[in-house]
Amino acid sequence: MLRVINFARKYRRSQLRAPFHVSAMRTIFWDYDTNKVMMIDQRLLPGTFILLKNESYTDIASSISDMAIRGAPAIGVAAAFGVALAARESHAKTLRDLAVELVSAGNILKASRPTAVNLGWAVDKLLAFAASFAGSADDVRQALLTEAQKMADEDVLINQRMAKHGAELINDGDTIVHHCNTGALAAVDWGTALGVIRTAWEQGKKIHVLVDETRPRLQGARLTAWELEQYGIPYEIISDNMSGYFMRAGKVQKVFFGADRVTANGDVANKIGTYMLALAAADNNIPAYSVVPTSTIDLSLATGDLIPIEERSQDEVLDIQLAGERVTPKNAKARNPAFDVTPARLISAIVTENGIAYPPYETNLKKLVK
Amino acid sequence: MLRVINFARKYRRSQLRAPFHVSAMRTIFWDYDTNKVMMIDQRLLPGTFILLKNESYTDIASSISDMAIRGAPAIGVAAAFGVALAARESHAKTLRDLAVELVSAGNILKASRPTAVNLGWAVDKLLAFAASFAGSADDVRQALLTEAQKMADEDVLINQRMAKHGAELINDGDTIVHHCNTGALAAVDWGTALGVIRTAWEQGKKIHVLVDETRPRLQGARLTAWELEQYGIPYEIISDNMSGYFMRAGKVQKVFFGADRVTANGDVANKIGTYMLALAAADNNIPAYSVVPTSTIDLSLATGDLIPIEERSQDEVLDIQLAGERVTPKNAKARNPAFDVTPARLISAIVTENGIAYPPYETNLKKLVK
Repeated sequence: MLRVINFARKYRRSQLRAPFHVSAMRTIFWDYDTNKVMMIDQRLLPGTFILLKNESYTDIASSISDMAIRGAPAIGVAAAFGVALAARESHAKTLRDLAVELVSAGNILKASRPTAVNLGWAVDKLLAFAASFAGSADDVRQALLTEAQKMADEDVLINQRMAKHGAELINDGDTIVHHCNTGALAAVDWGTALGVIRTAWEQGKKIHVLVDETRPRLQGARLTAWELEQYGIPYEIISDNMSGYFMRAGKVQKVFFGADRVTANGDVANKIGTYMLALAAADNNIPAYSVVPTSTIDLSLATGDLIPIEERSQDEVLDIQLAGERVTPKNAKARNPAFDVTPARLISAIVTENGIAYPPYETNLKKLVK
Repeated sequence: MLRVINFARKYRRSQLRAPFHVSAMRTIFWDYDTNKVMMIDQRLLPGTFILLKNESYTDIASSISDMAIRGAPAIGVAAAFGVALAARESHAKTLRDLAVELVSAGNILKASRPTAVNLGWAVDKLLAFAASFAGSADDVRQALLTEAQKMADEDVLINQRMAKHGAELINDGDTIVHHCNTGALAAVDWGTALGVIRTAWEQGKKIHVLVDETRPRLQGARLTAWELEQYGIPYEIISDNMSGYFMRAGKVQKVFFGADRVTANGDVANKIGTYMLALAAADNNIPAYSVVPTSTIDLSLATGDLIPIEERSQDEVLDIQLAGERVTPKNAKARNPAFDVTPARLISAIVTENGIAYPPYETNLKKLVK
């Protein structure tokens, strides 16, 4: 059962692996006192800061589909911890019985959101680890947790390597349009595109961020603005439909966003609105960069047309402030695709932890995926 | 003083010139019982339907700048009625004294919003009429009201002529993306781009409208959806950042919007977001049409770069539901340009009451402006 835990002092300094940021803790972590998974509930930020206690792998699946946790790297790690939880929930006595249960738990975790490839990547990695494990069922229970924890720790390091590569693309004085939230909250810590921006800022580059509010769930206005406040980076929130105006006015030098899945040809599935943002950048000769861990690159798909795009509840569009109150007519209907695909021709470069890929992506992306 | 009048039965059938629609009344009209200007308050729709009584020309200026009334044709007529009110408010005994006061009132009306050219067009038309008038100050007071009323009546006829021309561009089965509100509420009645859609629907064409919600003030989600409900035209609301997704998916055949000012070269200043919408249309070979009365065409400006763009209060972006409650961080700042300029190269045609102009606009637009 999902439990809401009020921000408890014990989590400020314990259960964490340094470096930790934003609110002195990771976005998601295993609590070794209770053997449950804690995560910052991102639905109520910035107004309310609470931790959500996930007691089972189905709790994790709900937290992912309800977007208590979101961001491709973060939900990848959540799913990995979910597999570790599933192993502990199982009463299987043999490795074989356990493996069967884990596959079924893994399928539920993978189905919690369809677009980000990190979910499947993380689940499959842990299932493969279990399948090739030599030892008792209890041994694998422990080993799966160690693996998931390793994945969480590596996520932070990977983000910081990405950030270093990406920061080279940012010049002193740049104004940057940023879409959705790709910061510490979208990962275990530090973040992807926002991690790049943060690193550039810490390198002393004076930058300014135009924060796309990112309708319908307002990850920009709520989460990215909240993170930038804490980092002290100057920013202004804009409606998603405004970035083109500022580009045409010559006020924007760079565009940065993350991705939920990148295909072999360099097509980028990312939060809805990325395609129109990248179009505006291209029309104004402004470079648009996608920042992703290589775990987000799906070389098994040739093009972005093959990526499944999640369509979420129309309530997220109709209930504009997500507060249970509508400004639309009573019978209004809405559509709510959560992602779009930006064709590779509009992507200036793809930043990964292993370096920066430039076009042609067909040849250059796979060099970075190890 | 602006007074809120609850929807009174007397207005249902009196004081109106047929045809009237939406709520059985015009968006704005002169009340001949009280000699005041009544308008539907568009800030509270669709939840609350009230009429606002404008007792002075400064009331009209406030109603325009606060967006109780909006839409280029509607605010043009509001300003015309404002000049008529100013003439009645004045105690001037001579035509010359009255003219001086009217110029000053006209300047206040023109300054209430800078981007739509209809404001200046309407005020200047009435001032020129007064300047060339032969008669007493009282005669001109009466004549100015007759002129303003004529402008209001003509606005409806002009919209219906526009709608007929534009409806030829719509095919049976089309799905149309529509930006902002350009319906009966944006004019005295019927509307511009939405008027075209309505006429096509009444011609029996089965169409579907994807309604851009139109952040930050949600004219699409609130006003256009409300109008479409009443006309029975099928629609779905989308976030502004979603139209590109549906276009890439092959679901959109046409894009329609209005304009606040069109320059001699065919550049179109319109509600913020139009530029990014038109970019997405062009990238998918979908025609994008601007529908405007010729009073919105400003041949005195060579290009859209010369159009003054209003930047409104950041509160409209930060207070997302316009309900006094914020989801953004406490200290968050925002930008709020209310319009953008879409370059002529992205506009497939400009529909006016005198016919449809296709590129090259430099030669073809002026043929339609009489």
